[in-house]
Amino acid sequence: MTAGFLEDMTALLGSGGVLTGGDVAMRSADPFRVVPVVADAILRPRDTGEVSAILAAAARHGVVIVTHGGRTGVSGGVDSRAGEVVVSLERMNRIVEVDLVGRTIIAEAGVTIEALHAAAEASGLYYPVDLGARGSATVGGTIATNAGGNRTLRWGMTRDRVLGLEAVLPDGTVVSSLNRLVKNNTGYDLKQLFIGAEGTLGIVTQAVFRVVPKPISHEVAMVAVPDNAAMLRLLDAMQHLVSLSAFELIYPEFYESVTQPEVQPRPLPLGAHGYVLVEAMGYDAASDRAQFEAILERMLEEGVASDAVIAQSEAQRAALWKVRESVDVAVKAIFPLAMFDVSLGVADIDLYVRTVRERLEAAFPAAKMIVQGHVGDNNIHLGITVGPDTPAHEHAVDAIVYEALVPFGGSMSAEHGIGTLKNEWLRVSRNPAEIALMRAIKQTLDPANRLNPRVLF
Amino acid sequence: MTAGFLEDMTALLGSGGVLTGGDVAMRSADPFRVVPVVADAILRPRDTGEVSAILAAAARHGVVIVTHGGRTGVSGGVDSRAGEVVVSLERMNRIVEVDLVGRTIIAEAGVTIEALHAAAEASGLYYPVDLGARGSATVGGTIATNAGGNRTLRWGMTRDRVLGLEAVLPDGTVVSSLNRLVKNNTGYDLKQLFIGAEGTLGIVTQAVFRVVPKPISHEVAMVAVPDNAAMLRLLDAMQHLVSLSAFELIYPEFYESVTQPEVQPRPLPLGAHGYVLVEAMGYDAASDRAQFEAILERMLEEGVASDAVIAQSEAQRAALWKVRESVDVAVKAIFPLAMFDVSLGVADIDLYVRTVRERLEAAFPAAKMIVQGHVGDNNIHLGITVGPDTPAHEHAVDAIVYEALVPFGGSMSAEHGIGTLKNEWLRVSRNPAEIALMRAIKQTLDPANRLNPRVLF
Repeated sequence: MTAGFLEDMTALLGSGGVLTGGDVAMRSADPFRVVPVVADAILRPRDTGEVSAILAAAARHGVVIVTHGGRTGVSGGVDSRAGEVVVSLERMNRIVEVDLVGRTIIAEAGVTIEALHAAAEASGLYYPVDLGARGSATVGGTIATNAGGNRTLRWGMTRDRVLGLEAVLPDGTVVSSLNRLVKNNTGYDLKQLFIGAEGTLGIVTQAVFRVVPKPISHEVAMVAVPDNAAMLRLLDAMQHLVSLSAFELIYPEFYESVTQPEVQPRPLPLGAHGYVLVEAMGYDAASDRAQFEAILERMLEEGVASDAVIAQSEAQRAALWKVRESVDVAVKAIFPLAMFDVSLGVADIDLYVRTVRERLEAAFPAAKMIVQGHVGDNNIHLGITVGPDTPAHEHAVDAIVYEALVPFGGSMSAEHGIGTLKNEWLRVSRNPAEIALMRAIKQTLDPANRLNPRVLF
Repeated sequence: MTAGFLEDMTALLGSGGVLTGGDVAMRSADPFRVVPVVADAILRPRDTGEVSAILAAAARHGVVIVTHGGRTGVSGGVDSRAGEVVVSLERMNRIVEVDLVGRTIIAEAGVTIEALHAAAEASGLYYPVDLGARGSATVGGTIATNAGGNRTLRWGMTRDRVLGLEAVLPDGTVVSSLNRLVKNNTGYDLKQLFIGAEGTLGIVTQAVFRVVPKPISHEVAMVAVPDNAAMLRLLDAMQHLVSLSAFELIYPEFYESVTQPEVQPRPLPLGAHGYVLVEAMGYDAASDRAQFEAILERMLEEGVASDAVIAQSEAQRAALWKVRESVDVAVKAIFPLAMFDVSLGVADIDLYVRTVRERLEAAFPAAKMIVQGHVGDNNIHLGITVGPDTPAHEHAVDAIVYEALVPFGGSMSAEHGIGTLKNEWLRVSRNPAEIALMRAIKQTLDPANRLNPRVLF
């Protein structure tokens, strides 16, 4: 089915532009386990013109295209099959422009988030979207999934950082909408169609990012809270700090698991209701520090914080962040693990977590759950094991986690997207009219359902 | 043509729900001049169900609908004709919910921005989108136009404050997408379709706004800059102030005109290249004040600022803002006036303004231009008179203003939208592929072109 198409592609892209056979299977479609990519070929265009030619030819040949960024997603968004062809943006990895005055960076889709950070930093700038997979995750992938991460409560998700982008539609049309302006109300904001659409409406080839001056002050503290009311009061107080850049809640099971002596030091003793990593960044070192300390002192005096430690050096700041980011360590302790990424009102999070825990323990004697998340953005991640990893167990756990969200109006995917693994549960967060409108948009841009065909729907 | 439809509407809405004749013509479609509304009727639904019933009936009868918010727009977005029917959201003016913990406010489309501000303030919260027309402009209108205003550089445009919304499609389908969560990646972000779409894709009936804690500190200063390089250096320095909330440039002609003795005091003497109103808001009065003063002192020492005055009271803060907001005063001085709302890279603004001024003066001996704007958001407003207000003059001035933007990649509508008055010039800022994609979206949602049919396209 794809033979004629792949002949055209070899002529277009050259031999290094078309990978087949073992070169396809040696790549993994999953960031945590080895799941070989299955596809007739991986195409590696070098510029937007080649992406356009690929999609125009795919349209003529009726070939299904699945787009790959850094393959760090956890919702199966890169899933492809025999008879389908992958387009990887990995060779489109140029920083196109850094504008110091306008504070914008134009980057091709294949640039990694780490490289984008480096390009910004080299110019005294800062790209604030950050996530654990920064070394592999790409500009294109984070746009497709509207990646969030640790500092959303200050600087927004990827959607909030993209001023403009260029995308290729399924018929090969290039829509170049590389706006650099903060204010530009000239018709529909087309970039929004492609951000968070998980590659179902077009292939993003480059984007204009809004960056900020590189912060010079950096404060990090770990704060123990005695109960949920205190956690909410701490969040409220910290939201009155203009320089606040992160508010990350770690539940005790996770905290205990990742601060075993053989892993890393435990910054505060066990026994608290939860541990909150708070971070602030600004441009006036003395004043930022004073404000940060003043709030934390007040929280200790008022009993909102039962204990707290403020990092005194870059090494200590990194150590506190490492407690929060040691998901791999926590995961090893309770393998096999199902990971969830939900969001709901901050006032409801504690009751939700207790409800899920009770229902899991009632259904599965071996159930264990670890919880941490970006509470300042409504977002928590649950890691759950209930015993052997069977489809029936998987479905039962999914049902407990997702159905408990419904009374709270929660979202079943806060930042990981739907991909091909969560379609069944989309109805938990989206009503039939919303899904019908999504389908109408998909039908308009990709009527033959040839781009990432099993994603979302 | 609309008779049968209006009979149905009277049955649906009652007599107070359907205005005709003089009750239609007594309303103005223009905020600055009296331009009577022309339409067969104005319908005033009381809830989303009635909006849905109106649009379903309009679809059956083939009636064109034009939506009215506060009618403060300046791009002709409310333009209607005989044979068409207006839907005004004025009776849907309830604050539905204020969530103190999640910091969200749900408001119906007819709530004014002033009422939204008041509802927020009553709960210790702050809705940061603000604009001169706040007393009449509504939630629905500011969503439809993605209103920006004075504090965009800190808190974004309306798009950035809307977490979710409810809209009624042209066939009467209610799409309720009232998300309240910061992170929610569950399929296409449908609210984006309706924000900034100027009522062409559906009628927004209510929305969830993200609000912030009410600031307790408020600093305002007027700063004189000796040249454009100094203005850019001042902007760079102020962007390192975390609490910065506005950076508004006033050109000397505007400044002189609005600070005549009979109008209001002149805070700084004439003779500077430009006057910048800078504002900061935060939650730590002493520290915020100290940081604000420190930056301004440094600017004076370095010669970036040639003069500056910091407001010492609420009255003085209001007086400095009044200089910036006295557009009505400046307008009177150079009537008849054409107003423009453009954006471009901050580094290019000065050259652009000089280019437009030269071309105007070359073409029209009587040309006068006043300039001010939200430079921190790339946005300037031009007020231009060239003599008698004729269609030929209008077109010639439009051409000078808009065509000079092209080499800079500027936008011909930064925050006012396209409406029915600027369609001809959309091509200055949008390429054919972008416009084709906009048309495809319009065709999908409103295939019969019955909602605001002359807007945008």
